[in-house]
Amino acid sequence: MKIGIVQMPVGMDKAQNVACAVENIRRLANLGAQMVVLPEMFCCPYSNAYFREYAEEAGGMVYQSLSNAAKEAGVYLVGGSMPELDGTRVYNTCFVFAPDGSQIGRHRKMHLFDIDVKGGQRFMESETFCAGQDVTVVKTAFGDIGVCICFDYRFPELARLMALKGAKILVVPAAFNMTTGPAHWEITWRMRAVDNQVFSIGVAPARDENGVYVSYGNSIVVSPWGKVLYRADEKPASAVVEIDLNEVEAIREQLPLLKARRRDVYDLRQL
Amino acid sequence: MKIGIVQMPVGMDKAQNVACAVENIRRLANLGAQMVVLPEMFCCPYSNAYFREYAEEAGGMVYQSLSNAAKEAGVYLVGGSMPELDGTRVYNTCFVFAPDGSQIGRHRKMHLFDIDVKGGQRFMESETFCAGQDVTVVKTAFGDIGVCICFDYRFPELARLMALKGAKILVVPAAFNMTTGPAHWEITWRMRAVDNQVFSIGVAPARDENGVYVSYGNSIVVSPWGKVLYRADEKPASAVVEIDLNEVEAIREQLPLLKARRRDVYDLRQL
Repeated sequence: MKIGIVQMPVGMDKAQNVACAVENIRRLANLGAQMVVLPEMFCCPYSNAYFREYAEEAGGMVYQSLSNAAKEAGVYLVGGSMPELDGTRVYNTCFVFAPDGSQIGRHRKMHLFDIDVKGGQRFMESETFCAGQDVTVVKTAFGDIGVCICFDYRFPELARLMALKGAKILVVPAAFNMTTGPAHWEITWRMRAVDNQVFSIGVAPARDENGVYVSYGNSIVVSPWGKVLYRADEKPASAVVEIDLNEVEAIREQLPLLKARRRDVYDLRQL
Repeated sequence: MKIGIVQMPVGMDKAQNVACAVENIRRLANLGAQMVVLPEMFCCPYSNAYFREYAEEAGGMVYQSLSNAAKEAGVYLVGGSMPELDGTRVYNTCFVFAPDGSQIGRHRKMHLFDIDVKGGQRFMESETFCAGQDVTVVKTAFGDIGVCICFDYRFPELARLMALKGAKILVVPAAFNMTTGPAHWEITWRMRAVDNQVFSIGVAPARDENGVYVSYGNSIVVSPWGKVLYRADEKPASAVVEIDLNEVEAIREQLPLLKARRRDVYDLRQL
């Protein structure tokens, strides 16, 4: 299976951001990609000041552009994320499209990034966004994929649930910052892969030192053994990365972690 | 708080192994250690061929030597692990002693390392050992510590449970091998620290290329931010590593992961 990774720059112009995404989807499909993954907030500056202004309902311009691009390119598309308007509510939402352009999945970020350190960093996603309520596993012709967004991936419970629901690939549009990125990005994607014996994919916006949010970049593809198969640096980048889904079962046979869990002993109500 | 790390060689002579451990406990206490940690199976070659032969009941020679050493040195002692005989059963057990020599904790390895790859590696701990049934968190004057053994640490559920029960340090006698060690040792200890915002300590036997089991070594101390504070190589090593337990609360305030969990959404019965 060939995965297209789009680490694109995200600017102030929504239409231009969408055009950049669509152009990358076409190009990577021509290079053989069967599934393309966009970054978190690929069409909107990552700031509470813009989320509501840039938000659209499902079916709006951004959504239709993604659906059309998936269909024209004939690929699965994990559409990064966008601010989604639903009535008066705004969600940080990833839509997933099939090669025929139909929507086959939707993940609304369920853990909002709220941080408020006295005299330090402050970012309160919950001031704008509502939190999603669903664990998202999407069926594809290649197998099931789990989809979550950025801060969601901080929580081992969620990755485990997606794996137990059958996901063989965890696909995570994300945008770590310059504090958490260098410290935690790589080990998070690697360890979720190792613990759950799945492929683990993170796709981030390219870094813009002068942007409203400085993304760490470093989009990554990790094997179920924890091996880094692809890693971008901070600049705009795209790639087609081939993965062998048979590795999931092979690793699970060699090191039977999922079978060896002690559900008889853990009191999971205490988690 | 100062932690003494004992990455000792483990040979065929039980009494000599114990003497080596005791000598290290004394020496590290003299250097300021307030808690000393020994490796998994510090007194017994790591092989099903030896576990039952080397096994002792709680209160036996090895146990008494550890209790006495803790008392004489005036330190908390996480006594690595030893084959523990209980009736006809054998466990892979870590005893924890207070500075007065009293036993304050006991962890019996609850995930047994069973691997059986066709034409590949085979190691079936369950052929000799019974599995423990308890999550272990021990109270000390410095705060609560979670204790588990090696393969136990593969399971994010267990680390999470120990942290939720109040552990601020996860102490893990372990002995990864030359396949899993280079691939998974460091990220496992780092990621359990990051996910649970605790200190994460792994202590392994020194490597003996000609031993019955070739340990990866690389004993490690990791901060709640995931920073490696100490890491040995493969040779015999010991160290006193200072940690600041206030870091646990500081990190939890800066990045409130434990509070941000979505227990309202995860169906934990599915884990």
